[in-house]
Amino acid sequence: MAQQQRKSLNESHANHALIDQYRSCRQLSEQLVAPLSEADCQLQSMPDASPAKWHLAHVSWFFETFLLRRFDPTYRVFDDRFGHLFNSYYNAIGSQFSRPHRGLLSRPSLEEVLAYRHHVDLAMEQLLTQHTDAAITELTTLGIQHEKQHQELLLTDIKHALYQNPLLPAYSAHANSQTSKSLPPLTWSTFPEGLYEVGHDGKGFSFDNERPRHKVYLNAFKLANRPVSNGEYLAFIEDGGYQRSEFWLSDGWAWVNESQATAPLYWRQMENGWHLYQLTGLQPLPLSSTACHINYYEASAFAAWKGKRLPTEQEWEVAAGHWRGRVNDVSAGELQTQAADDEALSQLFGDVWEWTASAYLPYPGFKPFAGDAGEYNGKFMSGQFVLRGGSCVSPTNHVRTSYRNFFYPHQQWQFSGLRLAEDA
Amino acid sequence: MAQQQRKSLNESHANHALIDQYRSCRQLSEQLVAPLSEADCQLQSMPDASPAKWHLAHVSWFFETFLLRRFDPTYRVFDDRFGHLFNSYYNAIGSQFSRPHRGLLSRPSLEEVLAYRHHVDLAMEQLLTQHTDAAITELTTLGIQHEKQHQELLLTDIKHALYQNPLLPAYSAHANSQTSKSLPPLTWSTFPEGLYEVGHDGKGFSFDNERPRHKVYLNAFKLANRPVSNGEYLAFIEDGGYQRSEFWLSDGWAWVNESQATAPLYWRQMENGWHLYQLTGLQPLPLSSTACHINYYEASAFAAWKGKRLPTEQEWEVAAGHWRGRVNDVSAGELQTQAADDEALSQLFGDVWEWTASAYLPYPGFKPFAGDAGEYNGKFMSGQFVLRGGSCVSPTNHVRTSYRNFFYPHQQWQFSGLRLAEDA
Amino acid sequence: MAQQQRKSLNESHANHALIDQYRSCRQLSEQLVAPLSEADCQLQSMPDASPAKWHLAHVSWFFETFLLRRFDPTYRVFDDRFGHLFNSYYNAIGSQFSRPHRGLLSRPSLEEVLAYRHHVDLAMEQLLTQHTDAAITELTTLGIQHEKQHQELLLTDIKHALYQNPLLPAYSAHANSQTSKSLPPLTWSTFPEGLYEVGHDGKGFSFDNERPRHKVYLNAFKLANRPVSNGEYLAFIEDGGYQRSEFWLSDGWAWVNESQATAPLYWRQMENGWHLYQLTGLQPLPLSSTACHINYYEASAFAAWKGKRLPTEQEWEVAAGHWRGRVNDVSAGELQTQAADDEALSQLFGDVWEWTASAYLPYPGFKPFAGDAGEYNGKFMSGQFVLRGGSCVSPTNHVRTSYRNFFYPHQQWQFSGLRLAEDA
Amino acid sequence: MAQQQRKSLNESHANHALIDQYRSCRQLSEQLVAPLSEADCQLQSMPDASPAKWHLAHVSWFFETFLLRRFDPTYRVFDDRFGHLFNSYYNAIGSQFSRPHRGLLSRPSLEEVLAYRHHVDLAMEQLLTQHTDAAITELTTLGIQHEKQHQELLLTDIKHALYQNPLLPAYSAHANSQTSKSLPPLTWSTFPEGLYEVGHDGKGFSFDNERPRHKVYLNAFKLANRPVSNGEYLAFIEDGGYQRSEFWLSDGWAWVNESQATAPLYWRQMENGWHLYQLTGLQPLPLSSTACHINYYEASAFAAWKGKRLPTEQEWEVAAGHWRGRVNDVSAGELQTQAADDEALSQLFGDVWEWTASAYLPYPGFKPFAGDAGEYNGKFMSGQFVLRGGSCVSPTNHVRTSYRNFFYPHQQWQFSGLRLAEDA
Repeated sequence: MAQQQRKSLNESHANHALIDQYRSCRQLSEQLVAPLSEADCQLQSMPDASPAKWHLAHVSWFFETFLLRRFDPTYRVFDDRFGHLFNSYYNAIGSQFSRPHRGLLSRPSLEEVLAYRHHVDLAMEQLLTQHTDAAITELTTLGIQHEKQHQELLLTDIKHALYQNPLLPAYSAHANSQTSKSLPPLTWSTFPEGLYEVGHDGKGFSFDNERPRHKVYLNAFKLANRPVSNGEYLAFIEDGGYQRSEFWLSDGWAWVNESQATAPLYWRQMENGWHLYQLTGLQPLPLSSTACHINYYEASAFAAWKGKRLPTEQEWEVAAGHWRGRVNDVSAGELQTQAADDEALSQLFGDVWEWTASAYLPYPGFKPFAGDAGEYNGKFMSGQFVLRGGSCVSPTNHVRTSYRNFFYPHQQWQFSGLRLAEDA
Repeated sequence: MAQQQRKSLNESHANHALIDQYRSCRQLSEQLVAPLSEADCQLQSMPDASPAKWHLAHVSWFFETFLLRRFDPTYRVFDDRFGHLFNSYYNAIGSQFSRPHRGLLSRPSLEEVLAYRHHVDLAMEQLLTQHTDAAITELTTLGIQHEKQHQELLLTDIKHALYQNPLLPAYSAHANSQTSKSLPPLTWSTFPEGLYEVGHDGKGFSFDNERPRHKVYLNAFKLANRPVSNGEYLAFIEDGGYQRSEFWLSDGWAWVNESQATAPLYWRQMENGWHLYQLTGLQPLPLSSTACHINYYEASAFAAWKGKRLPTEQEWEVAAGHWRGRVNDVSAGELQTQAADDEALSQLFGDVWEWTASAYLPYPGFKPFAGDAGEYNGKFMSGQFVLRGGSCVSPTNHVRTSYRNFFYPHQQWQFSGLRLAEDA
Repeated sequence: MAQQQRKSLNESHANHALIDQYRSCRQLSEQLVAPLSEADCQLQSMPDASPAKWHLAHVSWFFETFLLRRFDPTYRVFDDRFGHLFNSYYNAIGSQFSRPHRGLLSRPSLEEVLAYRHHVDLAMEQLLTQHTDAAITELTTLGIQHEKQHQELLLTDIKHALYQNPLLPAYSAHANSQTSKSLPPLTWSTFPEGLYEVGHDGKGFSFDNERPRHKVYLNAFKLANRPVSNGEYLAFIEDGGYQRSEFWLSDGWAWVNESQATAPLYWRQMENGWHLYQLTGLQPLPLSSTACHINYYEASAFAAWKGKRLPTEQEWEVAAGHWRGRVNDVSAGELQTQAADDEALSQLFGDVWEWTASAYLPYPGFKPFAGDAGEYNGKFMSGQFVLRGGSCVSPTNHVRTSYRNFFYPHQQWQFSGLRLAEDA
Repeated sequence: MAQQQRKSLNESHANHALIDQYRSCRQLSEQLVAPLSEADCQLQSMPDASPAKWHLAHVSWFFETFLLRRFDPTYRVFDDRFGHLFNSYYNAIGSQFSRPHRGLLSRPSLEEVLAYRHHVDLAMEQLLTQHTDAAITELTTLGIQHEKQHQELLLTDIKHALYQNPLLPAYSAHANSQTSKSLPPLTWSTFPEGLYEVGHDGKGFSFDNERPRHKVYLNAFKLANRPVSNGEYLAFIEDGGYQRSEFWLSDGWAWVNESQATAPLYWRQMENGWHLYQLTGLQPLPLSSTACHINYYEASAFAAWKGKRLPTEQEWEVAAGHWRGRVNDVSAGELQTQAADDEALSQLFGDVWEWTASAYLPYPGFKPFAGDAGEYNGKFMSGQFVLRGGSCVSPTNHVRTSYRNFFYPHQQWQFSGLRLAEDA
C-alpha cells in the first residue's frame, strides 16, 4: 500500500472501502460454486489442480492465519486441524496435507466449509471495523487479492475436473453468445529501441514479484494486434505442426512424444469436425475466438512455424502501457475466449493469459513480502515462464499492467494463449 | 442352481423367494451408504478401490446388462452412457471407463444413481414376476451374489478412503461393544492323511470357480483353533518382524522395503501406545481381537516366525466341513474383528478372510460361466492367492465352505488375516 | 545327496568324480564367454538380467562363500569387497550391490574376474583332494548345479543384451543347421485318473524345492506329443490373438496393453516377412521350430485360443516318467529351438522350458536347504509359475524329471514355450 | 568466423593452423581415454551421461555428417549404421538410437571406434588440405569446438560412472598436488549502474547462442572475489541447510525431499569425517578448494543462507571483462577444483562452472546456426540456467567471456559451483 493511503486522516473511510472489497470478494467465491454439487466440489483431477471446496477453505485459512490469529486476541480458531488441511505451501506456518490427495477430503463437508467461511467473515468484519492498522489493511488486501487468484483457479480446475467425465457436463448452462464474429486481420504495432521502465509504479496494490520498478533496455520490436485465434492454430495443426520437430523446443518435442498431444487441451477431433469443451459444454470449434489452453511449448512451436516469436514480458508491459479496450474477464459472464476487436492492440487484458518468452525470475532488487507471506511468490522463481494480461475467467479489476502470472511450460490447463511478436 | 430347484413344480414360489432375496439385497446396499455424504460416496483412495456411488451403480448395471437388456424387450435403458461408466471389466460387453478415475465421476449424482437403482428395481421385479425361466433365475441369483460381494467391497473401500483423511472420520458412530474378552489359548485340530473331495457339492448357488467338486490327496495336517490375534501379531512386530528378512518371501521383503511397512494397515504407533483405525474410528489396539488387514506377505512372514505355515485352501475346506459356531459377519453389526470363542475351530466363517497357501488357479475340469459372465472369475487366475471364510463385513449367508476369495499378495486393504497350520 | 553315496566305502573315487565334474563345469563357463568381448561381458539390458562377467564372478563367490571360507582355514579371500559385489540375494550372508546396476561394474575387469576364478579353482581342487566330508561334497555339488543354472542364464541374458543393439550382433557365428525339417502332426497321449507320486525320488542330486516326494490325485488328462511350433503360434497372431481380450488372463491383457506386445520377444515383422533373432543372428522365422520366448500370459492365451490348456506340473512330471528321445540342450551346439521328432512325446527335455499351469509353491512337507543355502529356492514361492524340462541352452545332464524352474508370468526372455494339454 | 579471416589472402596458412587445431583436438580425446579399459568406456550411469566410447564416436560422426558427406564427393562412409547410433539429437539428420541405452552398445568395439576416428581423420585432413572454402573452415571449427565440449563431458561422465562402483576406482593415479593452501578472505568488487554491452564481439569463433552483442541496463552490483569453498559450503550443511526449507526454491525443496540429498554429489560423511570423490579417488574433503558438483537449487539455497544472491549472466560477463589470472583447466592436469588465489577476481575462468541467476534464453535478435547445425543450441532454451567460466576439466582455450553453458537446475554431475553477488 502506498504511504499516503496508510497515513490517511480518514482511515475509517478506507476501511469501509476495504470491508466492501472484502465482502464482494467473498461473495463471488460462493457464487462461483453455486452451480456445483457437493460431489463436484470434491473433484481433484490432477495434483496441479485443487477441489473447489478446498479453494473455498484455503482462502479462509489465509485470513484466519495471517490476520485473525495475529491481530485478534479474542479470535476463536474454528478448527485447529484445518491448519494442516488447508495450508497450501507455507512451510513457515506448518505442515501441509499432501497436495495430490486434496480430493480425498470428503470431510469437512461443503456445509462445514461454508460455516468456516461465515465464522471467518464475522471475525474479519469485526477486525476491520475495530482496527485501521496499516499491517491489517495490507494483509487484508493481500488476502483479497489471494482469494481472487483462487477464484480464477477454481474455474480453471473445475473445468479440468468436469472434462474427465465422459458425460462432459457443463459447469454453466449459460446460453452461449458465441456468434460468428469476424476476426480482424493480423497487424503490428512497432515500439522503438530504448531504455524503458517496467515494474509496478507504487500506486495501489501490487505483489512483491512486480517490484521494484526498474530500467530495461529494449531493442525495437513489433507486437501483434491480437492473440492467435483457434482458426490460425488449426492451420498449424493441419500443416503437421505436432509431427514436425523443427518447430519445437527440445523439451517441447519430448512433451509431444510423451503426452501424444495432437492439439491443445479440450480440443476434440470428431467425425463431424473439431469441437471444443468449454465451461458451457462441448461445442463446434469457434474459429474466430482466441486459441486457449495452449502450453508454452505449443505457443513457442506455433510462433516458430509462423517465423515469429513470443514477446518478452518487458516488451509486453511496455506495449500494454498504451492499451485501451474491452476486457473479457469474469464479469463478462462468458467464461470463454472470444474474437478480438478491431483495434491496434485488442485483448491485452482478459480473454487469455499470454505466454511471454521470459522465464519467471526476480526483478533486480527484488525483496519478498516480509514475514511468512514471503513464501507467496519468490520461491517459485525457477523453471516457469511469465504470462501476462489475465483471462476470460480472471476476476474484475484484478490484473494490472505489471501483473506477472507464471506456470510451467508443459501446463495446458490454464486459460493461456499467445500473441506474436517480432524484431522491428 | 441345482437341477431340482430349476425344475420346481412351484416356480412362482421360487420366484417369490427370489424377489424377496432381490429386495433385501438391494435394500442393504442402500442402508450401507446411509451414514455417508454425497462427497464420501465419491471417494476413491486408490485404483484398487471404488467409490461407494460407483458400487451402487455398477451392481445395477449388472442387472440391467445381463437380465433386463436380454430378457425384457420392453425395458427402457436408463441412460445409454452408463454402460461405459459402470462396466467394471467385461470386455465382451464393451469399453470401460478408466478404473483409477472412477472417483472423478461427480455426475451422475448420488440422487441420479439412486433413481437408476429404483428404475432397475421396478423392471427387475416385473421381470421376476412375469418370468420363471431358469436362465433368468440363475442370472438373477448371480446378480444378487454379485451385489453382496460389492457390499463387502463398499465397506472395505470406504474404510480405506476415510482413513486417508487426517481427521480420521468414523463410518459409523455405533458404540463399540469391544470388551476385554479373554482370548482362548492356541490349540490344534488334527486331520488325517487321505483322499478328500473339495469343491462345491451342487446344492444351491456357487460361483464357477468353486467347481467341479474333485478329489485331492492331503497329507496329515493340523489347523489352529482360531485366527492370529492382534496381540500375537504385535509380538511379531516387537520381535523385529519387519526388520528381519529371514521370515519373508523375496517379493514380500521387497514390499517391506518399498512400502516402508512396519505394521499392518490401519495400525498406528502413537505416544500413548498402538492404536487401530476401525470403521467406528481410532481406538486403542484391542489385543484379543483377530489381527486384520494383513497381506499375504505379512501372513506368510508371521507364520515363518512362528515356525508354522498357512493352510492350503484344500486343508481349510476339509476342516471347515466340521465347523459349527458363531459368525461375526455384517449382520452382527460390529464391522470389526472380535476375539475368538473357545471352540475347537472358532471363527472359520466371518471375522477375517483367512489367507491360504494356495495360489488362485482353476480346479481340474474348471469351466467358466457360459456367455459374457465367463469373465466373472476365470480371467483372474494368475498372481493371486486364495482366502477363505468371509469377514466381519461379509453379507449374511453369503460365504460357503467352498467359497474362494482371491487377492494379490501385497494387498492389505481387505479384511484379511490368517490362521496357522502345520504338518501333523 | 543320498545316504548310500555319502557313506561310500570308496570316497576318494567319489571325489575324483566330483573334481572332474567341478572342472568340466568351470571350463564350460569360460568357454561360453569366449565369443564375447570385455564390453559384451559388461552388458546388462534390464534388472532381470546380469552381465556375463557378473555371472562368472558370482558362481565363484558361491564356492568361496559356502565352501572355502567355511571348510578351509588356510584359504586367503581373493578380495573382501567381492562379497558385497557378487552376492546375489543371500541376506543372511550380507549386503548386496544393487541388482539393476550390475552393468556399472567395469571393475573388477574381466581379467581380474578370471584371476578370481583361477584362485578359487586352485583352492577348491585342493579342498576336494584333501577332504571327503559329506557336507563338502553336498555343497560342492550344489555349487556345480548352481553354476550350471548360471550358464543357462548367461546365454539367456547375453541374447537379450545383444538384441538391444540395432546392429543385432550374433553371439555365435556358428553356421545354422536349421533345415526345413517337416513337423509331425499334433497327437495326444492319454494318462488315466489316479493317485500318483511326484517329486524327487532321492537318487542323486536334487534341489530342495523338488522334495519331498508325495502323492497327488490326478484326473485323466491328455498331453500333446510336442511343443507348439512357430508356425502354429504365427497362426494365433494372424488370427488377431494379440487384439482379442477373450483369450487372455486379466493380468495378461494388461501386459499386452502396457507392453504393446504383438508377438513373442525376438520376433520381427519386416517387409520381407517375419524374422527371428537367435544367438546366431537374425534369420527368417523357422516355422517348424518350437516357439520360444513366450511368457505365461502368451502361453495361456494361445492355449485358450486352441480350446486347450497348459498341463499342471504334476501332469507333466507323470508324463515325463515315460519319456525317451533326443535332447536339444547346450551340448547340441544349436543354441536355438528345433523342430520336434515324430515320437509319442518329443522334446519333453531340452528345446524349450514348458510353462505349466502350476504356481510355484512349496510341496507338502517342503523343507528348505539347511543353513544360508536355505535362501536358494524357498523364498521365491509367490507370484511365479513352474516351467519344466529344460531348453536348448540348458547344460547337459542338468535337468531332471522332477526339476522345477520358475519365472514370473510376464517374463519373456527365458527360452520358454508351451505344450498343450486337455482333460481326457 | 570473422569476415577478415574468411577472406584471408593466405588461406593455405589458415588451413595449416586449422589442421593443427584439428589434430591436437583429436589427439586429446584419445589421450583422455588412455587410462580407461574397454569396459570403462562402455559405462553409462544415467540417461544424462554417455559412455566414453560413444563420445569418441559421436564427435567423429559430427565431422563425417556435417563435413565429409557434404563436401567430399569421394568420401566413403565408414559404416552407414553409425548414423543412427551416433547422432545425438539432430532430428533433421535422422533418427537417433535411444539415449538412455547408449551403454548397451558393446558393438562397435572400442577398437572399431578408434578405426572410425582414424578413417575420419584421414579424410578430414585431406579435405582441409584441398579446400579452403569458408563453409568448410567454419564447420570444421564448429566440429573442433564441439569435440572440446565432449572432452569435458567425457571426464564429467566417467567420474559419475566410476563413482557408481563401490570400489570407487580412480580415473587417474595422478599424485594429488592438493596442498593445504590457505583461502583468501571473501571480498567484493563493485560495478556501477549503467548501460553495458554483452554477447560475443565477433572476434574469433563463437556459438550462435552468444550472439548478437547487445545492450543491457544493469543496476549497480558487487561480485565476490572467488567462488564458494568446500569449507564454506560445509558450514551451510552444518547449519542445517538441507533441513531448512526457508533457503530453498520450491522446486529445490521438492528435489531435496525426493533425492534425500544432504550434501553435494560426491561428498561422503564417513566415520573419520567428510570425504570427497575426485577423479583421483576418494580423499578427505579439501576445505580450501572450491565447492563443486552443486546444482542450481543448492547454489541458490547457499546464497539465500548467506543473505546474498547469484549474479546474472550479464553481471558475470561485465565483470569478466576485467579479469586476469591463473586458469585451472584441463591443461593444469589437476582435474579437480583448487583454492582460489588472492586476487580481486580469482578463478572466473576454469575451476568450476558458476551458476548464474539467468535462465538460458535467446539473446535479443538471436539467430540459430544456419542449416542442420541450427539444432545445436537454440532448441534447449527452456527450463535451464546459464553457467559461466569453465571448469577444471574444460579444454584449454575453449571458454570465452561470452561463453554460455546451460544445465537443468537439478543437475549436479557437472563441475558446477557458485560465486556470490549482491546489490551494490
